[in-house]
Amino acid sequence: MTRFDLPRRLVAEGLGTAMLVATVVGSGVMAASLTQDVGLTLLGNTLATGAILVVLITILGPISGAQFNPAVSLIFAISRKLPKRDFGGYILAQIAGGVAGTIAAHLMFGLPLVEMSSKARTGGAQWFSEGVATFGLVAVILAGIKFEQRAVPWLVGLYITAAYWFTASTSFANPAVALARSLTDTFSGIRPVDLPGFWLAEIAGAVAALILCTWLLRPGATSTASSEAKL
Amino acid sequence: MTRFDLPRRLVAEGLGTAMLVATVVGSGVMAASLTQDVGLTLLGNTLATGAILVVLITILGPISGAQFNPAVSLIFAISRKLPKRDFGGYILAQIAGGVAGTIAAHLMFGLPLVEMSSKARTGGAQWFSEGVATFGLVAVILAGIKFEQRAVPWLVGLYITAAYWFTASTSFANPAVALARSLTDTFSGIRPVDLPGFWLAEIAGAVAALILCTWLLRPGATSTASSEAKL
Amino acid sequence: MTRFDLPRRLVAEGLGTAMLVATVVGSGVMAASLTQDVGLTLLGNTLATGAILVVLITILGPISGAQFNPAVSLIFAISRKLPKRDFGGYILAQIAGGVAGTIAAHLMFGLPLVEMSSKARTGGAQWFSEGVATFGLVAVILAGIKFEQRAVPWLVGLYITAAYWFTASTSFANPAVALARSLTDTFSGIRPVDLPGFWLAEIAGAVAALILCTWLLRPGATSTASSEAKL
Amino acid sequence: MTRFDLPRRLVAEGLGTAMLVATVVGSGVMAASLTQDVGLTLLGNTLATGAILVVLITILGPISGAQFNPAVSLIFAISRKLPKRDFGGYILAQIAGGVAGTIAAHLMFGLPLVEMSSKARTGGAQWFSEGVATFGLVAVILAGIKFEQRAVPWLVGLYITAAYWFTASTSFANPAVALARSLTDTFSGIRPVDLPGFWLAEIAGAVAALILCTWLLRPGATSTASSEAKL
Repeated sequence: MTRFDLPRRLVAEGLGTAMLVATVVGSGVMAASLTQDVGLTLLGNTLATGAILVVLITILGPISGAQFNPAVSLIFAISRKLPKRDFGGYILAQIAGGVAGTIAAHLMFGLPLVEMSSKARTGGAQWFSEGVATFGLVAVILAGIKFEQRAVPWLVGLYITAAYWFTASTSFANPAVALARSLTDTFSGIRPVDLPGFWLAEIAGAVAALILCTWLLRPGATSTASSEAKL
Repeated sequence: MTRFDLPRRLVAEGLGTAMLVATVVGSGVMAASLTQDVGLTLLGNTLATGAILVVLITILGPISGAQFNPAVSLIFAISRKLPKRDFGGYILAQIAGGVAGTIAAHLMFGLPLVEMSSKARTGGAQWFSEGVATFGLVAVILAGIKFEQRAVPWLVGLYITAAYWFTASTSFANPAVALARSLTDTFSGIRPVDLPGFWLAEIAGAVAALILCTWLLRPGATSTASSEAKL
Repeated sequence: MTRFDLPRRLVAEGLGTAMLVATVVGSGVMAASLTQDVGLTLLGNTLATGAILVVLITILGPISGAQFNPAVSLIFAISRKLPKRDFGGYILAQIAGGVAGTIAAHLMFGLPLVEMSSKARTGGAQWFSEGVATFGLVAVILAGIKFEQRAVPWLVGLYITAAYWFTASTSFANPAVALARSLTDTFSGIRPVDLPGFWLAEIAGAVAALILCTWLLRPGATSTASSEAKL
Repeated sequence: MTRFDLPRRLVAEGLGTAMLVATVVGSGVMAASLTQDVGLTLLGNTLATGAILVVLITILGPISGAQFNPAVSLIFAISRKLPKRDFGGYILAQIAGGVAGTIAAHLMFGLPLVEMSSKARTGGAQWFSEGVATFGLVAVILAGIKFEQRAVPWLVGLYITAAYWFTASTSFANPAVALARSLTDTFSGIRPVDLPGFWLAEIAGAVAALILCTWLLRPGATSTASSEAKL
């Protein structure tokens, strides 16, 4: 899968998730401190997140696959893109990196190292949003890998740019990042009590995307053959 | 044209149109809920739409051609890029997908499944805008396919990003998406009664682009030959 | 230079300049109508202009070179990238296209076909801005063509995106577009009386870039040789 | 390293740093003059800076490496990507270019040639921000060069786009640019007295990135071999 050993791959997953979370949390704090307009705050948050995703996936993808996301790692483990024996390590690195990212953002903005978020994100509309968001993310990754591998960093960055706006939840779509965001009481936070709902919705969306893509991305051999036979 | 069978192609057209409409409608609802500034609302709507177009055309183009648009499918059917026997199926998939996209956006934001739009979009300036918008879209697609096939997802995403702002209608440029947007009474809606005017203008613009491009994109053999003869 | 005959090349120059001006003028009208914030207005204007430049240069570059700009055509004529006998036709096509673009934008927004702009843009700071803007544009094009031909559409789109903000004049950098913008009394207009100052500054900047690039982009053969001799 | 002689490389470094600083300073002045919203001001500043970085690195990279940054040149000198005898010249060219960029921006906006900034940027949170910002920048450059050389202009432009928002200091990440920005009393300025703290933090971050990348980017030969042996 990669010629890098496990320690380097785990550091890449941890570092990437940390930079991602530091960007999400930090840009939310920055934007909220500069403007009263919540639309503009989300815009600053979006730009920074979309941009850093392209960068991180490009530079760390060749080392670890740049998953930064337990839902993605789960799909990769199921579809044998990630060796099953590495799955646990990846999840732990992502969680540790995510928490470190929140702490780093707080240090950059002079906030307490961690704080529990008080931002409620719950209910059917939010869960459906997270399911759709993660469904789309996993579909983009699986189809991107198949059709246009080198574009995947851009596809993910652009997808999240859109999903920040088209979902009611601003598209967490990542259980480790959601956990890390429960430790900040700022713009991008989520109450710890709301995590399980998000996690379930994200995993459901990811699995749904895997099921659909397993069918959709495999050319229908029989009917193509018969269609060619007609030519 | 593609090695994927018709069911997969129709699912790709439906899924892509659904994701596109969910993005257009959803990001409009999100943006309007976060800011009072209509310029900023259109900006959030634009960013999300432009970004998702690049993504959807990249990942679904290899399956179905990623047309998501009856006006484009019409041009492709006329110019034999789409088998005529598939034309009807494509249109139905796009319409069904578009409606599903509106419903999905409404579910994500806790709105009624569908509602009739009350947003008036009519009159000569609007129709001329839609004609120009669709003319440009089809010209971009036809020239892009000829000169830089792999850039087409980017070209379409960037073109629509611009056209949201340079047309008075915010550039629907898509009869199926327009229909789906008549079912939401939010920022991106259009009154059902205004649909026929938009449809006619869009088809007229698309046909005009096909006519121009048929001449413009074919190197003028005679005069080039005579010019080469002079060298 | 291209295998397209002169009529097609002139239509490409005219169409491209028309689409460019329609975008500049139209997005300015749209943005100014949606928000009171002039910063946000320029942002909408910038996004649309940068995006359409990438598109237009990609799809029309293979036909005519996608110059859309008399200052660029002048530099190309001097440096023999454009046959001198085509220079006059290119300029006329660009001017006609530009005026058509303003008219098209006005039609889309229900304004009078043309109107004289009352927006003053004059004085040393404005002229220096235009000189810098056009210097940069021509340098980007010449270096881009030399080092990374296929990236030129992106480089020009991104350069203008930046130059809209880093110059006091919002970077017209184009005599034909400036002329066309004197015919709209909206956000992006310029008083006809201010055109000569802009034109002179733009041509001076373009020529300065040509002189610098003629030296800078040619590897210094002697000193490189002596440096290699030392290895 | 490059087939261009030292004078051309130094001009490229100076010109590039000048254009970069003119963009940072000029877009800050422009944005602050158009809007009262500081979030929007930073957005205009960000867009222009990110865009010009992609352009400048693409067109000047083939000549000088497009470092524009003493912290980057230091890392390149240590890792033998820049001949040590050229290091001093590069730094001087970057400083001279940076100061010229501030002057050019001031001329474009009708301000005094230079003025001392009164904008305080000091304290642990700011220094940590600069350390993180420069750490990330150097890591992106080193990994980008290794894995995806041609994407480096995009990676740097996108990284800085994000870092303007995720750091409390808006990510100067460049000692020469910081110096040049101490000479403008506008949005992007920094008090001269605050420079040493920024410089130290930037160099510390750069060196930390070099140390990490030296380990991270080298595939772990032994453990990969043993892992392959198991297959």
